[in-house]
Amino acid sequence: MNAPSGRLVNTLALPQPYLLFLGDTIEQSYAKTALGLVDWAPERCVAEYGVEGCTVTTGLPFMTPAEAHAAGARALVIGVANTGGVIAENWVSALVEALEAGLDIVSGMHARLGSVAPLAEAAARNDRRLIDIRTPPADIPVGTGRKRSGNRLLTVGTDCALGKKYTALALQRAFAGRGIAADFRASGQTGIMIAGGGIPMDAVVSDFEAGAAELLSPDAAPDHWDVIEGQGSLFNPAYAAVSLGLLHGSQPDVFVVCHDPTRMVILGLEDFELPTVDEVIDMTIRLGRRTNPAIRCGGISLNTSGLDADVAETLMAAERKRLALPVADPIRGGPAFEALVDACLA
Amino acid sequence: MNAPSGRLVNTLALPQPYLLFLGDTIEQSYAKTALGLVDWAPERCVAEYGVEGCTVTTGLPFMTPAEAHAAGARALVIGVANTGGVIAENWVSALVEALEAGLDIVSGMHARLGSVAPLAEAAARNDRRLIDIRTPPADIPVGTGRKRSGNRLLTVGTDCALGKKYTALALQRAFAGRGIAADFRASGQTGIMIAGGGIPMDAVVSDFEAGAAELLSPDAAPDHWDVIEGQGSLFNPAYAAVSLGLLHGSQPDVFVVCHDPTRMVILGLEDFELPTVDEVIDMTIRLGRRTNPAIRCGGISLNTSGLDADVAETLMAAERKRLALPVADPIRGGPAFEALVDACLA
Repeated sequence: MNAPSGRLVNTLALPQPYLLFLGDTIEQSYAKTALGLVDWAPERCVAEYGVEGCTVTTGLPFMTPAEAHAAGARALVIGVANTGGVIAENWVSALVEALEAGLDIVSGMHARLGSVAPLAEAAARNDRRLIDIRTPPADIPVGTGRKRSGNRLLTVGTDCALGKKYTALALQRAFAGRGIAADFRASGQTGIMIAGGGIPMDAVVSDFEAGAAELLSPDAAPDHWDVIEGQGSLFNPAYAAVSLGLLHGSQPDVFVVCHDPTRMVILGLEDFELPTVDEVIDMTIRLGRRTNPAIRCGGISLNTSGLDADVAETLMAAERKRLALPVADPIRGGPAFEALVDACLA
Repeated sequence: MNAPSGRLVNTLALPQPYLLFLGDTIEQSYAKTALGLVDWAPERCVAEYGVEGCTVTTGLPFMTPAEAHAAGARALVIGVANTGGVIAENWVSALVEALEAGLDIVSGMHARLGSVAPLAEAAARNDRRLIDIRTPPADIPVGTGRKRSGNRLLTVGTDCALGKKYTALALQRAFAGRGIAADFRASGQTGIMIAGGGIPMDAVVSDFEAGAAELLSPDAAPDHWDVIEGQGSLFNPAYAAVSLGLLHGSQPDVFVVCHDPTRMVILGLEDFELPTVDEVIDMTIRLGRRTNPAIRCGGISLNTSGLDADVAETLMAAERKRLALPVADPIRGGPAFEALVDACLA
């Protein structure tokens, strides 16, 4: 995984293992940080914890901070997101409890942990750390568009929170499994927790967004692949700026479109229909060729977790025929996913 | 100019009128902020001030800060730039004098006013404000895509620095001249000084870029127009994230493409050809219809300052015919510009 590639910026060394905090979340898709950690770094996850009203679970045992500390946990990780990335008021007493139990707190929220007075006070009182991982590196340069050496793949999507990180992780793992030097490049807080480094692209000042993406996948050996975690969607009315800066700065040779066929509207913005996969392919090529004229679509990653296996198979076969591209669900794997890997590397 | 329109929340609102500070400038081109203010917001400008060696003038009377305060001024605006964008040492005593005379200081420089110790001390001592226009307002929400009332025009461009601010100002003035309620909405530092408020869009964290643009042009009366200053270009490899967030959040009914026919490559990125006007029209419609399906191109604003009058006329006539759209240079004005205004309001 850490093959001949450039130096990663903003590397973090987080206290671990983790107690995963789920807040009062009732939407599975808002718990993607916790779920991603359990999937991709299970060895770092001891238990989960939440406050009244929480209905989401990662499947790990529920433990209080004191129980988790006794079981070896060293940090509580805020494993949920909400619109705006704020620390909800009804989370605070649980977070104070964690600090008093001897855990540090790790957060990828926009709001800084230290800006919440009871947390700052409890951390000082208990000599514990408040770690905001959504802090971009200092002195990011503006983008240059200069072509970098090595190969790049970017996952893009029809919306947020439907498999871009998961797909990038699965592709990196598959590339490495074939003996290809490949790095997963994390652009969001969960990915950074999994990878141990990266740049929180949505926290970068917009003038420097493409420049940050250029830093994220530096010059590498000619046969090396960076598999870059995408963010948002070019069609998301709130977050498209992040997606376009990441696309321009990543200058991908190949992109994979991530889509959930059961999602009809933009998450949290129900007046907006999801774009079609075709529209995302077309727009990604139109915009992406500005910094890489050779950009091409490697295929489609369908999140079919909401469908029965036979329905998923039928849908993927139909899409494969309709688009003349590989279509696979990385979680289901199999020959379809291997065909997607083949096409990306072709 | 401040006709029936929504209240600007979370945007900068500058103390005014201004005393224009010219430093020790001897080059007219370095005083473009002050000169722009006198051109576009004469009612906000009381006088000018400078230090020893200054040979530039805006034509306004020279007043000391105390005289200017007595004449009504409420802020000293740093109206000049120097190489490096720093606050020169020989400016500091004049700036302290302004604070002691009861003026706030407004700056669009890269360097933060508060980082200059004598200024920070004098501001605290005199209970005055140091306002850095490059600092965006706090607590910007994420975008929602919600359709707002009133009409919106956005200037877009084939690149940076070729007339988007000037075009927006000229169109707002022309709209107002026809008795139409219209506001100029500023998205960059010079524009913010001219308007007396706005949001520095390139300094906003990318996740909030569209949300900031939504704040910039709030709900307004059905017949009101916001004329919004564009930023960058969708085809600029460094700054396109700013442009797309501004486009989505502005949800313009009409856009005007600003272009300099003598510019062949992107400013500062000479490996990148300028996009064509046609490409910018096409891409702006494709992306802009996400938040306003009725988006349309009102016409083209050509910056012909590098061309002789007859060459400019010939070029504009040819472009008008080729694109079947109004094409005008707002500085040259005339019937061509009136036709552009007609088309925008149609």
